[in-house]
Amino acid sequence: MNECKTTPTKSIRFSQTKKWHYKTDVSVIGYGGAGACAAIEAADAGASVTIFELSSGAGGSTALSSAEIYMGGDGGTRVQAATGHNDTNQAMIDYLSACAGPQADADKIKAYVEGSRDHFNWLVEQGVPFKDSEYKERAIMALTDDCLLYTGSEKAWPFKEIATPCPRGHNLEVEGDNGGPLFMKILGAAVERREIQVHFNCRALALIQDDTGVIRGIRIREDMQEKNVLVDRGVILCTGGFSMNRAMLKKYAPNLLRCSEPIGNPGDMGTGILMGMGVGGAAINMHEGFVSIPYYPPASFTYGLFINAQGQRFINEDCYHGRVGAYILQQTGNRVYLVLSAEDYGDYEQVSYLGASVAGTGETIAELEQELGLPKDQLVQTLQTYNNHAKNGEDPVFHKCSEWLKPLNAPYVALDVTPGRGAFYPYFTLGGLDTRPSGEVLNPEGSIITGLYAAGRTACGVPRRGAGYNSGISVGDATFSGRMAGKAAAARVK
Amino acid sequence: MNECKTTPTKSIRFSQTKKWHYKTDVSVIGYGGAGACAAIEAADAGASVTIFELSSGAGGSTALSSAEIYMGGDGGTRVQAATGHNDTNQAMIDYLSACAGPQADADKIKAYVEGSRDHFNWLVEQGVPFKDSEYKERAIMALTDDCLLYTGSEKAWPFKEIATPCPRGHNLEVEGDNGGPLFMKILGAAVERREIQVHFNCRALALIQDDTGVIRGIRIREDMQEKNVLVDRGVILCTGGFSMNRAMLKKYAPNLLRCSEPIGNPGDMGTGILMGMGVGGAAINMHEGFVSIPYYPPASFTYGLFINAQGQRFINEDCYHGRVGAYILQQTGNRVYLVLSAEDYGDYEQVSYLGASVAGTGETIAELEQELGLPKDQLVQTLQTYNNHAKNGEDPVFHKCSEWLKPLNAPYVALDVTPGRGAFYPYFTLGGLDTRPSGEVLNPEGSIITGLYAAGRTACGVPRRGAGYNSGISVGDATFSGRMAGKAAAARVK
Repeated sequence: MNECKTTPTKSIRFSQTKKWHYKTDVSVIGYGGAGACAAIEAADAGASVTIFELSSGAGGSTALSSAEIYMGGDGGTRVQAATGHNDTNQAMIDYLSACAGPQADADKIKAYVEGSRDHFNWLVEQGVPFKDSEYKERAIMALTDDCLLYTGSEKAWPFKEIATPCPRGHNLEVEGDNGGPLFMKILGAAVERREIQVHFNCRALALIQDDTGVIRGIRIREDMQEKNVLVDRGVILCTGGFSMNRAMLKKYAPNLLRCSEPIGNPGDMGTGILMGMGVGGAAINMHEGFVSIPYYPPASFTYGLFINAQGQRFINEDCYHGRVGAYILQQTGNRVYLVLSAEDYGDYEQVSYLGASVAGTGETIAELEQELGLPKDQLVQTLQTYNNHAKNGEDPVFHKCSEWLKPLNAPYVALDVTPGRGAFYPYFTLGGLDTRPSGEVLNPEGSIITGLYAAGRTACGVPRRGAGYNSGISVGDATFSGRMAGKAAAARVK
Repeated sequence: MNECKTTPTKSIRFSQTKKWHYKTDVSVIGYGGAGACAAIEAADAGASVTIFELSSGAGGSTALSSAEIYMGGDGGTRVQAATGHNDTNQAMIDYLSACAGPQADADKIKAYVEGSRDHFNWLVEQGVPFKDSEYKERAIMALTDDCLLYTGSEKAWPFKEIATPCPRGHNLEVEGDNGGPLFMKILGAAVERREIQVHFNCRALALIQDDTGVIRGIRIREDMQEKNVLVDRGVILCTGGFSMNRAMLKKYAPNLLRCSEPIGNPGDMGTGILMGMGVGGAAINMHEGFVSIPYYPPASFTYGLFINAQGQRFINEDCYHGRVGAYILQQTGNRVYLVLSAEDYGDYEQVSYLGASVAGTGETIAELEQELGLPKDQLVQTLQTYNNHAKNGEDPVFHKCSEWLKPLNAPYVALDVTPGRGAFYPYFTLGGLDTRPSGEVLNPEGSIITGLYAAGRTACGVPRRGAGYNSGISVGDATFSGRMAGKAAAARVK
């Protein structure tokens, strides 16, 4: 991670820009999932389009991801329908709204859901392969070429009481964790089939703004030279979030620095967010991030109990790993453990991404409690209560679903999952520029900054809370919001 | 609260400003605690000073507050020393750093602490009366004219393990909750003794900025007319936070809208924050707020237990009410109760600000548990554990100090303190413009916006977290940061 920021926020004045090196209707900054989709839609709407990308190839953080895509609603995508899932817009809206909680953007969720089935079809048209099959394991991602899986907390309390559960994570038809590279290869080919100019190894330096505030171009640096790009319809910022910018994290999302590893590509420096702020754009929800604690596989760890320094449970362990991560960061006290029956420990060391070490073991739970230095009888009581109910298939305390309930038998083992003590806590940022569903960037009063658009993690999109994250919602939101911004920018009349 | 914002963020260009109606070295926007102190210091440093205030009198939110002031360190203020408290800078720095947690601004805390004893003396010089006495009750505020009291979580876990506890809340020598009006009357008189121009009923409309980015003035509206103010040295934004701006709260701090009542004056509309953002200033920590659940007096409620929907405790009940409020907002589930022994219920209805209604009573704790609809045996176990330890003066689970530990005897009563169900949850915002300790406003890269300063809740100051708030730290920070900004602006050489 870089301690320094590299891009100034300050815009350049149009009236003082004398020479124009390039001219385009729509300029897309950043060639990841959002940028590719923005460029394709803008080109298909008849605009001339130029992509400027810092690195020497397409991909961005999307290519580094699993590229699961969160889609559904309206009777179901082709895959949902083929696998017998009758999803509805209402269920998907209710679910995503609960996920975002008080931070929800109702307009954005509505647009995303109502456009979701069409988004699936659009991706298929671009050549993205989805198999009409379901992956039924509880996993961070499908490592087979199967498509549909639960990638959030849909079946977990309290969400299951809010919206009818439905799997919405769509995995590409490819073996292994190879969705991202394939997905970006396909989108890259779709870009290449169109009349879209692409400049690699090219840094966006600043926006060019006229005296009325309208964004009229960008200044770039390529081949050791600063150049000006005249943009007739719109600049679309698709430069990712700010996970790799330590100074920005410290300023805006210091709590995320308690995690172990920012994920994304080295260009996730907040460049686009800073450029947007520099012309008056509002950056919102800047403290939030996705925080994972990848404790499954093995799925058997879901039988276990997360325990805080008070020896209490604090979450239903059948929910999404990112929700658990968000709650772990909230715990008072200096330790968090995952307590397991040894019989569920299984092939942890082979299959897990967790990297947590064993903090203690016990022939009895009292022995484990003592070894962990927990307050006397707290863990004993917690487990006793849990086991008493679990044998009846119930969890009246945290409502873990019966599928993952069974009494935990001795001997016991506890993993130390305290943030900062060795466990893997990958994270990325969820704050960004405030935009309309069209991608138009808003100032703090909610007025549009004419000619400026943002998509993907440069914008604050549908995913808004670590505690309500779902795998596939960021690539889903990036590609969908990219398309919306591409359409809107292409349609802008000067 | 107003749904609309009233002030544009956009600055006006200096080169297009033809007529100047007023000229001043330093212009202070907002005449509350921060603004008064900024004006006094700037004037004392030899600058001509003009205050512009929206309302028709001085006061701001400081006048509406209790005006406790959080001060100490360096051997103690006069009052700390007289009452036998030998405070140190290190203890105060360690404590305030723990309060702010990952969000802490180390430079700002250091400056605040190192200047704190001098700040006390400076306030005394202005005429602010502090009695050399201590108020030893556990209370939200002193209703006598006594001075020194604990106004935070200094004596509570985990803070007591991090820093030697010391009381630092300084209450003015006045009976009743009348500190704020007296404090602002004194500061107002101090302003009047100086050559400081004051314009009431005057709205700041926009900053005036030159082509190099330097702030050169402000546009105001008074007497139905827009006027331009040429400012030679610095504009100091002291317009408070954004607690009264519902649209801003929804955008930046939606979680606070779960509380019941914004506190402050109607001018807390975020005006200064928006103006700062409009010229490229970074607004940080915007999601945070002070959230109070004023459950003491009666102090006897501290013997009680806060219980979540799982029937668990989640906080040591001897900490500051604002810390409890922050943790309540984090609880999973839809209910939070304060469970009391009836013998501690006392004169609740007469002395409390809480406004929570009785959710259930029980001759036994099992009966109460059932009446509240809590998961069977959870509350029973929680209380059993608590009582077993409390009779030995211990709380190994949440480390409540022995002073507030005793077994809770039947019969029991539970108050419903779930946010949104009647209990009083006042709140105000803690996010604002990123500034140096000098008050200089910073852009997202950390560069100074020349000529622009912010203080009080318009800046993001020493207090940064609801979970680590202390009464007196906001007025303390506002007055101290106002002084620093006043000095810095007056000293600026064009």
